[in-house]
Amino acid sequence: MDYFMPTRLYTGEGCIAKHVADLRVLGDRCVAVTSRHAAKASGALDDVERAFAEAGIALDVWDGVTENPPVSACAEAGRFAAERNAQFICGIGGGSPLDAAKAVAVFAANPTLDEEGFYDKAWECEPLPIVLVGTTAGTGSEVTKVSVLTDAAARKHSIHDDRLFAAVAFGDSRYTHTCSRPVTLSCGVDVLAHATESYFSRKADEISRAFATRAIRLAMDPLAAAAEGKELDDGQRSQLYDASILGGLAINTTGTCFPHNVGYYLTENYGVAHGFACATFLPAMLDCVRDYDAAYAAAFYSEIGADEGTLTGLIGACLPDLGIRMTTDEIEAALPRWEGNGSVKNTRADVSTGDIRELLESLFV
Amino acid sequence: MDYFMPTRLYTGEGCIAKHVADLRVLGDRCVAVTSRHAAKASGALDDVERAFAEAGIALDVWDGVTENPPVSACAEAGRFAAERNAQFICGIGGGSPLDAAKAVAVFAANPTLDEEGFYDKAWECEPLPIVLVGTTAGTGSEVTKVSVLTDAAARKHSIHDDRLFAAVAFGDSRYTHTCSRPVTLSCGVDVLAHATESYFSRKADEISRAFATRAIRLAMDPLAAAAEGKELDDGQRSQLYDASILGGLAINTTGTCFPHNVGYYLTENYGVAHGFACATFLPAMLDCVRDYDAAYAAAFYSEIGADEGTLTGLIGACLPDLGIRMTTDEIEAALPRWEGNGSVKNTRADVSTGDIRELLESLFV
Repeated sequence: MDYFMPTRLYTGEGCIAKHVADLRVLGDRCVAVTSRHAAKASGALDDVERAFAEAGIALDVWDGVTENPPVSACAEAGRFAAERNAQFICGIGGGSPLDAAKAVAVFAANPTLDEEGFYDKAWECEPLPIVLVGTTAGTGSEVTKVSVLTDAAARKHSIHDDRLFAAVAFGDSRYTHTCSRPVTLSCGVDVLAHATESYFSRKADEISRAFATRAIRLAMDPLAAAAEGKELDDGQRSQLYDASILGGLAINTTGTCFPHNVGYYLTENYGVAHGFACATFLPAMLDCVRDYDAAYAAAFYSEIGADEGTLTGLIGACLPDLGIRMTTDEIEAALPRWEGNGSVKNTRADVSTGDIRELLESLFV
Repeated sequence: MDYFMPTRLYTGEGCIAKHVADLRVLGDRCVAVTSRHAAKASGALDDVERAFAEAGIALDVWDGVTENPPVSACAEAGRFAAERNAQFICGIGGGSPLDAAKAVAVFAANPTLDEEGFYDKAWECEPLPIVLVGTTAGTGSEVTKVSVLTDAAARKHSIHDDRLFAAVAFGDSRYTHTCSRPVTLSCGVDVLAHATESYFSRKADEISRAFATRAIRLAMDPLAAAAEGKELDDGQRSQLYDASILGGLAINTTGTCFPHNVGYYLTENYGVAHGFACATFLPAMLDCVRDYDAAYAAAFYSEIGADEGTLTGLIGACLPDLGIRMTTDEIEAALPRWEGNGSVKNTRADVSTGDIRELLESLFV
């Protein structure tokens, strides 16, 4: 087991106000990185503004984060933060703003860095310290060293680096109350994807499996209720949020498997929300990891306290009809991206590019 | 959930040699803190000496740690380290040397500190950086901010502080092969005690429960084999060691409950090994937490995949006959130590001092 996760995590009602004093050691000038709508609507931005004002931390807001944020926007925000002499960066939102904030911290410290230098980690200066405030129960980005961004060629790539860990992360599940039902479901199945892919990663160890199995145990009930169209109460919101954090902790060690990477294709080309895109391929992964090692899969179901049918049934209940149709030519043209791909090889099964062709054909042709 | 555990953990065969370069940032002069025998016999000290020599780190060894180490010995070792201008401290061994090393790091940076100042955390200077190398599967001290030491009045006290986290911890379960069967069993039931007490702590949260339940799942099989007198193979040793790390991670958040604190009494007054002393009171705790909240207890057994009888049966199989007899007067005289005690109040049940009297009488009178 190799384990390293230095972020100080606080969750629960009012956690920002309660622990804002912790941030003073990071500096007294901060740039918040967020999207135009959710940070305000959820109440998170208000809480940050109020707490920072009381703590004497000056705050500028850069609210230009879009879904699947491009590296170029992060570079722009980084220059903005550098001009404002920000001493730390505070990301507020779901996966997109949090992942963007990590990159902004890199660019703020290295304003002349280009996209290639960013991905090569040729960062001359350490990123600014990072603070993250989560507003969705899905990404787990609050506690990961991962940032998934879209490059100039409109392709999603993940970058993993210890320097991208937040110094402090806050999770107040009240912020997730304003999520629409599709957002709750898409983020919720992303939790299942993180945890399941982590368990069936070749890098899984006993710490990551502890996180992964508990994430699934916690996510299943509230997610089933959301899939039935029920409004989630405070307890269910909090439970689903805790599950998302555990999912993030799990993938720190393991990374993800082929469902995430094949999911990127659906997001890039069909605009499918990230969680739905990844979860679409989870049942197929569960199928092939069982064929590969039945005993390992049996341990998984015993540890999550549910059988394969229950888990795939829940995933199916959460997924909308994507309404996607592909041609065999299109699939053939996409296949090279999965040749030798790390997430595909990370899957605890034998998954060939041909298997991915068959999978896409069976689902979309 | 509040979570903070900044230690970089490496486990597995040869992990020290593989990652010794990580230690160079801590300095090039180190004092190892260990006991006279185990660090050598286990092979851990040899591995440290070899790896440090290759990395150019000068090493002095202070091997005066005894079981239930007194604060005074740690102060002495701290002065030794200060005289040698050590830049960091490397604890090697089971719970006693690792807990001692944390205190030595405090005293090395504050050589004039007295026992009271140590417990009051009136530490003018930050402790030296700490590196820990575990040689038993029990304490989990490698990944905790806890140090349990014996004071001048021969009483055991635990001290918790974020500054006591190791910078780097190594766990190579091959070192546990030289543990005698009683040591394996006493350390092994300490894992069960950490994890079970953590789950039934009032401070338990979803992260600590993830650690605790997996620790128990992993510990049960190898421990049952050891209790039957079988030699453990590499896989079982490694599994039990991973369990001990998970147990440590669990108690970081929660602390322990009354079995640990009542166990200290057996250790101080009857010389009972720490793990056996604590585990003696686990079945009684399982009894009262079930009475207090049957649903919570049921969730615990479902999550560890075993019932109460199986768990208490395993504990019973591991425990030797302690051969202790107490008088009611003696018990009466001891009771004040549990009035308002933190570990007693931390137990998710109503536990009065009268309950502890009854428990001690039922076991030892």
